[in-house]
Amino acid sequence: MRSDPSHSRPDSPPAIPDDAAGSPHAPEFRRDPVTGRWVVIAPERSLRPIALEGAEPRHRANGERRPCPLCPGQEHDTPNEVLALRAPGSQPDGPGWRLRVVPNKFPAVRPLPGGTHKDGDLLDRAPGYGRHEVVIETPEHLANPTRLSDDHFRDVLLAYRDRLLALSADVHLRYATVFKNVGAEAGASLGHAHSQILATPLVPDAIREELGGADTYYTTNRRCVFCDILRSELADGRRVVAESPQFVAISPFAARFAYEMWVLPRAHASRYESVTAEAAAELAGLMKRVLRGLDAVLAEPAYNWFLHTGPLRSAELPYYHWHFEVTPRTARAAGFEWGAGCFINAVAPETAAAQLRDAIM
Amino acid sequence: MRSDPSHSRPDSPPAIPDDAAGSPHAPEFRRDPVTGRWVVIAPERSLRPIALEGAEPRHRANGERRPCPLCPGQEHDTPNEVLALRAPGSQPDGPGWRLRVVPNKFPAVRPLPGGTHKDGDLLDRAPGYGRHEVVIETPEHLANPTRLSDDHFRDVLLAYRDRLLALSADVHLRYATVFKNVGAEAGASLGHAHSQILATPLVPDAIREELGGADTYYTTNRRCVFCDILRSELADGRRVVAESPQFVAISPFAARFAYEMWVLPRAHASRYESVTAEAAAELAGLMKRVLRGLDAVLAEPAYNWFLHTGPLRSAELPYYHWHFEVTPRTARAAGFEWGAGCFINAVAPETAAAQLRDAIM
Repeated sequence: MRSDPSHSRPDSPPAIPDDAAGSPHAPEFRRDPVTGRWVVIAPERSLRPIALEGAEPRHRANGERRPCPLCPGQEHDTPNEVLALRAPGSQPDGPGWRLRVVPNKFPAVRPLPGGTHKDGDLLDRAPGYGRHEVVIETPEHLANPTRLSDDHFRDVLLAYRDRLLALSADVHLRYATVFKNVGAEAGASLGHAHSQILATPLVPDAIREELGGADTYYTTNRRCVFCDILRSELADGRRVVAESPQFVAISPFAARFAYEMWVLPRAHASRYESVTAEAAAELAGLMKRVLRGLDAVLAEPAYNWFLHTGPLRSAELPYYHWHFEVTPRTARAAGFEWGAGCFINAVAPETAAAQLRDAIM
Repeated sequence: MRSDPSHSRPDSPPAIPDDAAGSPHAPEFRRDPVTGRWVVIAPERSLRPIALEGAEPRHRANGERRPCPLCPGQEHDTPNEVLALRAPGSQPDGPGWRLRVVPNKFPAVRPLPGGTHKDGDLLDRAPGYGRHEVVIETPEHLANPTRLSDDHFRDVLLAYRDRLLALSADVHLRYATVFKNVGAEAGASLGHAHSQILATPLVPDAIREELGGADTYYTTNRRCVFCDILRSELADGRRVVAESPQFVAISPFAARFAYEMWVLPRAHASRYESVTAEAAAELAGLMKRVLRGLDAVLAEPAYNWFLHTGPLRSAELPYYHWHFEVTPRTARAAGFEWGAGCFINAVAPETAAAQLRDAIM
């Protein structure tokens, strides 16, 4: 079923296995006929290796122990890189890199031929078109991103920006979701620090709701809701976790998860693509501080982070404000959360912020 | 912080600890100012014991091993029962029961004084008013509901109905969410078979979206979307898991979770309260069959089930159709699912249904 790593050039799509396009294994978007909620049916994802036990850079696949596919020397185990920070003179897809971005070998979506046509029926579906990339954040086999140097963390944040700009060139793609899973409880399947970028023709439902809510607020108030939240939180102070000249970290008022944090730029900006290298360096410093605080309070919990930004190629929007959301996994979501779409958070955001502030000081 | 078990009478609210109402520990609904999504901030939930290791009916709380609070002989460890099926002559809140419904000792919401007033600000909040009940399904310390007899399973389904009817008497409550967590991965904190009922003044967001989507479909088509799905799935057959004269189990077309199942009545009905004892007996038989199939295919996975029904005291609605959703926990939801609100399902519903059919036959 799996093809060899593709031999495409940087920024061209990874090769599609001949037997996959149009096969029952090709990924597909499907729309729930009641709620309109889209899901991705991605049978290829079930083939990916799971390698988290222990700290060794090896994993078990089909009963056989193999080296970590994200470590240097294993570049043949990933599709060809689309972005890399490399030592002068080093060869693409060889060692000598300090950060690489590669197509996901077990993608949820793929640049399928046949485009993005939808059926439009009661049972609506569309080809699972898209790009699913992996940002390999460091050559070192480490899992905790706070162990990256400040410069290295900045480079990860700039790689996100550069890939958003590169993915904007594909007009079929409307949104690129940048996220990171830290720890098995947060969905990570490999113990080597990496982020993921999932670019799709659909704006994901949660982002669509957020954009819609922010637009409605702006229509009524002629102010960005995130700017108003920042003003209100900075005046109140109880939910502020940490600050830097250009950024603020808060425990959001209606946090779904215990110790959830949002990190926002003070200045209004809807597109993460506009972040400068200087701002990224400052953001990296603040992110490292608040994540170390989280590690201290909860003894290195599993968590996700997620970049919320405007759609690809969008103009600067007066109503939207890019930010990171950090969501620890301290409790398993239970039936009520999944079924009712309503989260029960056992730690008041004010309590969480006070603990995080104490840990950061 | 915790009070003794309350000594209220059946169907009256459990006693509120004096220090909790209005205290920083009282539960609260909070509205996300961007999306409008409601969450429950419930600090008391963090006090509940977690007791799942091993099969023994004992749990560890504060370092001390105590008997399972849901077992016979431990009735003093739960608030007073609001419903029970009992041997003739047995005393309320003593042994001799085969099913009990009690208020949750560590509730997410409570019948707080002060009602359901909302602030209506940028940071909107309301008291965490509601009822959170536990359906103790059997006196036996077992976790797998398929080990209940058919009659016993029917009685659980009828207890749901009877509590929905009883909770309808509180006009502040608009929706009662009935759900069950099986296994730690699904959020269960006790290894003794139980369901939960969470009744709130708010219709939970996911149910509101489902009701809204179904209403829109009806406005356009003058047909219930669930009736149309049933017709379409029965004609197609590929996603049908099992059938009985009055009920059908399917793998939904846009399943969010691998091996997700919906169990629907063939005849249109929006309110679970209308289910008869005879229909509940048939439903119990079908639910046991499909859950045994799931246990066989996935080696007793963790899962949730969730009753989707019309709001409390609603009239019979032409656009809505009650059903159960069964959602296995085969993969941890990762950053993309949480952050984007879009689920990636690695098992096509057609594949899942075929495997489940084979296991059930």
